[in-house]
Amino acid sequence: MKTRSNLTVPRSMSRRHFLRVLGATGGAAAAIGAMDAWGMMMASAAEAPPVLSGNANGRRVIILGAGLAGMTAAYEMSKLGYETPIFEARDFAGGRCQTARRGFSLTEVTGVTQRCLFDDGQYINHGPWRIPYHHRSTLHYTKEFDVPLEIMVNDNDNAWDYREEEGSPLSGRRIRRRELQADIGGYTSELLAKAADQDALDRELTAEDKEQLLDYLVAFGQLDRDTLSYGGTGGRGYEEDPGAGLRPGVPSDPFAFRDLLQHGAIDGFRAVAGHTQKNTMFEPVGGMDQIARGFEREVGHLIHYEHVVREIRQSDDGVRVVLENATTGETREVEGDYCICTIPLSVLNQIPADFSSEFQAAMQAVTYVSVGKMGLQFARRFWEEDDFIYGGHSTTNVFGNISYPSYGWQGEKGVILGYYNFGGQAVEVSARSPRERVEYALEMGSLLHPEVYRREFETGFSVAWHLVPHNLGGWASWSSEARNDAYPRLNEPDGRVYLAGEHLSYMTGWMSGAIESAWLQIEKIHDQVQARQGHAARQVA
Amino acid sequence: MKTRSNLTVPRSMSRRHFLRVLGATGGAAAAIGAMDAWGMMMASAAEAPPVLSGNANGRRVIILGAGLAGMTAAYEMSKLGYETPIFEARDFAGGRCQTARRGFSLTEVTGVTQRCLFDDGQYINHGPWRIPYHHRSTLHYTKEFDVPLEIMVNDNDNAWDYREEEGSPLSGRRIRRRELQADIGGYTSELLAKAADQDALDRELTAEDKEQLLDYLVAFGQLDRDTLSYGGTGGRGYEEDPGAGLRPGVPSDPFAFRDLLQHGAIDGFRAVAGHTQKNTMFEPVGGMDQIARGFEREVGHLIHYEHVVREIRQSDDGVRVVLENATTGETREVEGDYCICTIPLSVLNQIPADFSSEFQAAMQAVTYVSVGKMGLQFARRFWEEDDFIYGGHSTTNVFGNISYPSYGWQGEKGVILGYYNFGGQAVEVSARSPRERVEYALEMGSLLHPEVYRREFETGFSVAWHLVPHNLGGWASWSSEARNDAYPRLNEPDGRVYLAGEHLSYMTGWMSGAIESAWLQIEKIHDQVQARQGHAARQVA
Repeated sequence: MKTRSNLTVPRSMSRRHFLRVLGATGGAAAAIGAMDAWGMMMASAAEAPPVLSGNANGRRVIILGAGLAGMTAAYEMSKLGYETPIFEARDFAGGRCQTARRGFSLTEVTGVTQRCLFDDGQYINHGPWRIPYHHRSTLHYTKEFDVPLEIMVNDNDNAWDYREEEGSPLSGRRIRRRELQADIGGYTSELLAKAADQDALDRELTAEDKEQLLDYLVAFGQLDRDTLSYGGTGGRGYEEDPGAGLRPGVPSDPFAFRDLLQHGAIDGFRAVAGHTQKNTMFEPVGGMDQIARGFEREVGHLIHYEHVVREIRQSDDGVRVVLENATTGETREVEGDYCICTIPLSVLNQIPADFSSEFQAAMQAVTYVSVGKMGLQFARRFWEEDDFIYGGHSTTNVFGNISYPSYGWQGEKGVILGYYNFGGQAVEVSARSPRERVEYALEMGSLLHPEVYRREFETGFSVAWHLVPHNLGGWASWSSEARNDAYPRLNEPDGRVYLAGEHLSYMTGWMSGAIESAWLQIEKIHDQVQARQGHAARQVA
Repeated sequence: MKTRSNLTVPRSMSRRHFLRVLGATGGAAAAIGAMDAWGMMMASAAEAPPVLSGNANGRRVIILGAGLAGMTAAYEMSKLGYETPIFEARDFAGGRCQTARRGFSLTEVTGVTQRCLFDDGQYINHGPWRIPYHHRSTLHYTKEFDVPLEIMVNDNDNAWDYREEEGSPLSGRRIRRRELQADIGGYTSELLAKAADQDALDRELTAEDKEQLLDYLVAFGQLDRDTLSYGGTGGRGYEEDPGAGLRPGVPSDPFAFRDLLQHGAIDGFRAVAGHTQKNTMFEPVGGMDQIARGFEREVGHLIHYEHVVREIRQSDDGVRVVLENATTGETREVEGDYCICTIPLSVLNQIPADFSSEFQAAMQAVTYVSVGKMGLQFARRFWEEDDFIYGGHSTTNVFGNISYPSYGWQGEKGVILGYYNFGGQAVEVSARSPRERVEYALEMGSLLHPEVYRREFETGFSVAWHLVPHNLGGWASWSSEARNDAYPRLNEPDGRVYLAGEHLSYMTGWMSGAIESAWLQIEKIHDQVQARQGHAARQVA
């Protein structure tokens, strides 16, 4: 099942260093020829778990948290013979890798409980919901665990954009994103083409450069070759689509450039999508929690559910964890040689633990993001049937976006992500009751889908991650100062406790961050075990 | 299953006319308010078959060709009681809506036969392969016939671009499309931003306009806000991706702008995708021929296979068609009141038929496009595993593109579209033997995937549509002159024979063109039948 490059390089070696070394030995030609090989290696550095040699030497590693980081650690270490019991506060595995479907329930720290009432087959990924193609570590396990993937439509220029902008003639209208995208690209191409044509650019362009630039701009913005003017394009959509018989199609008229500028319709368009938002984007067939289920099939027998961590103690010889049974309230203690703690820092901060004061200070330096999501089930897929929107996001400057499901195409019902909010907005909305949150979501979504949104609504399920027990936040957020100071310290063990999770990565909030963080930490523990074993062997000798 | 707008307007009414009428009666406010309603109608005009009232009056309509046009006509007319036998030259239904999988065979007019040897579960859609979201008529039937859809990845900026361009330092290298896209967008944004900042644009921009434009360009091109310079962006990809632990990621350096211009790397980037290439793009799960199978489940009992049309005769009273059994060579004649002929004009031109000379001349005005496609099965999905390319197209200026499968993610094997060529190139390649075509495809594809392409290759299957019996071309191509003169004539019946197919649409080469053409023609026949019935009734009275 696994594919792994045979090439390995130290992870700390930079590409420039690698090429310098190679260039020194094999000359420039070798260095250039090696660039492709390097491309393979760079990717492979994070595409597969570390190759651990040696053995576990009978060591026991207590893993706290059965999220993806914890299960990754248990899965990989148990292969080598490590004893890796996992203690999980919830009665299910996966951490934030959850999917809300019929029967799923959630009690927030306020004591309010919601039970998901979606129809069978309908669901919302209210935790992680996207896997970009370059998250090799996540894709490593979807392949290893035979979790089928499908495309998550992350880009749909037929979706709506809705803005309220004082003085804008386009304010309060829903507009297809393709129209905005085409017109802005067209007009800016026109401006630049005319400037280039009149030699008004300060950057020196040769006559040939200028011709090539004009060729590009005419193609990119769909300009008239003679006048260098933008007058609309089929790509922005037709007033009447080309059809059969005598229906050649009726072109649509572009908006005025000044109106677009005033409207602020420029938001959200980029020459290329940002790194984490790039296509190809995946989701597992049947819900994101299928990834959790994949891990669970392998390590479920190691998980002790409903074990809430109350204390983390350690000495030079080992680790001792006090656990409380979430149902009975009974406590027990477990001991091990090492501990991998994947508990979010927002929660871990509140657990008595034998961490150095320096380590504790570092733990305080992180903040956690308030995040809210709302799943709304509708009786009819009106966005597909009436608006021809299949997946992707409709955008607003009022409350954020709504997102359409990428599964169940042309089916009877569907679940829309009614909001995905952050920070103060998430806190504000989450202060309302579940019913009031739904009301808010319906009011907001009705800006994009007037009337039908309320008419077809059936049931909603919301999450406010900052209010979810054992999480208390969506994901870690590092200031650049904290990245410099606190973050490196937390990546190193404190005594025999190693932290892991998305918070210990530059991919915060992503499953790959959690997985790769675990990969790094198990390698450190294993190295430690091998070193001590060698040391003990030498002492015996 | 079906959804249909309650709003209907005459199809010939333009939006402007509609709004003028409405404006005249209800004032400008009514006209503006109606624009949304019109949007619904415009779409609905082509989203569902015509609503036919009245009855078939015992009429028999002979349908020639069991492609999508012919099966659409039979399916819709038989609902009303029309007798609609379909005569099909091949031994399977679907016309060009085909999928090559194990067991599929094809004999070209040269007599050369290929048999597809792909593994079970592997296939190539060597006819139509894309369904854009706005092809409502095709989506109408996928829904009606419960044909499950999945996303066809039509846009993948992690795919390669490869160009050979004399004098270009980037010539002969494969480059990620995201890098080109980011850099070109960045540099052109920089050029325009600096020109705007120095008030070098001839178009009058107010100070506020200028600020808004700069905001947009900084965001779009990812410019430095202070210097207005482009220096790369995470969206173009990292030299080393951000990861866990102490791996913040290593940004990549942009190419030089002049190198990009010289390289001609501008090709293929547009502010928005063209109308027919827009996302969301679909394909049926399991192959495009699942649409043909959907129709076949409904009208299969009406199809007479292996009946090759030899003559089409008509009088004032009816139509008579001479058919030859493809296996036995026996001929038979069938008679009907009307005929819907979906035979491609490239083939129909050679069949003796009672058409008016004017009609025959119009038929000669069309040309058919030479089109070649090649499916290559590989033992390993190296494009996913090694290059992280999931679907979409890698582009070249040497031979065209190769396209990666949008099904079977992370599976063991896969089928790449090794070429998709047109015109002279298609003719040239198709003149070779199937084995030589494969050799050509491997040579070309190896530009994008050196070594591994040949190493992992297993078996190929190619089609040259201009050499396929009963098609003799990929699709109809209308010059603008022929569109004006010949095309309208062919959309009208000649006597009792009505033509239908993609060639009688402004969506040539698309399934929706075939379907909607059939919708138009069955409406005309039915109107004719109703009119004659009324006429007969009046005569009796």
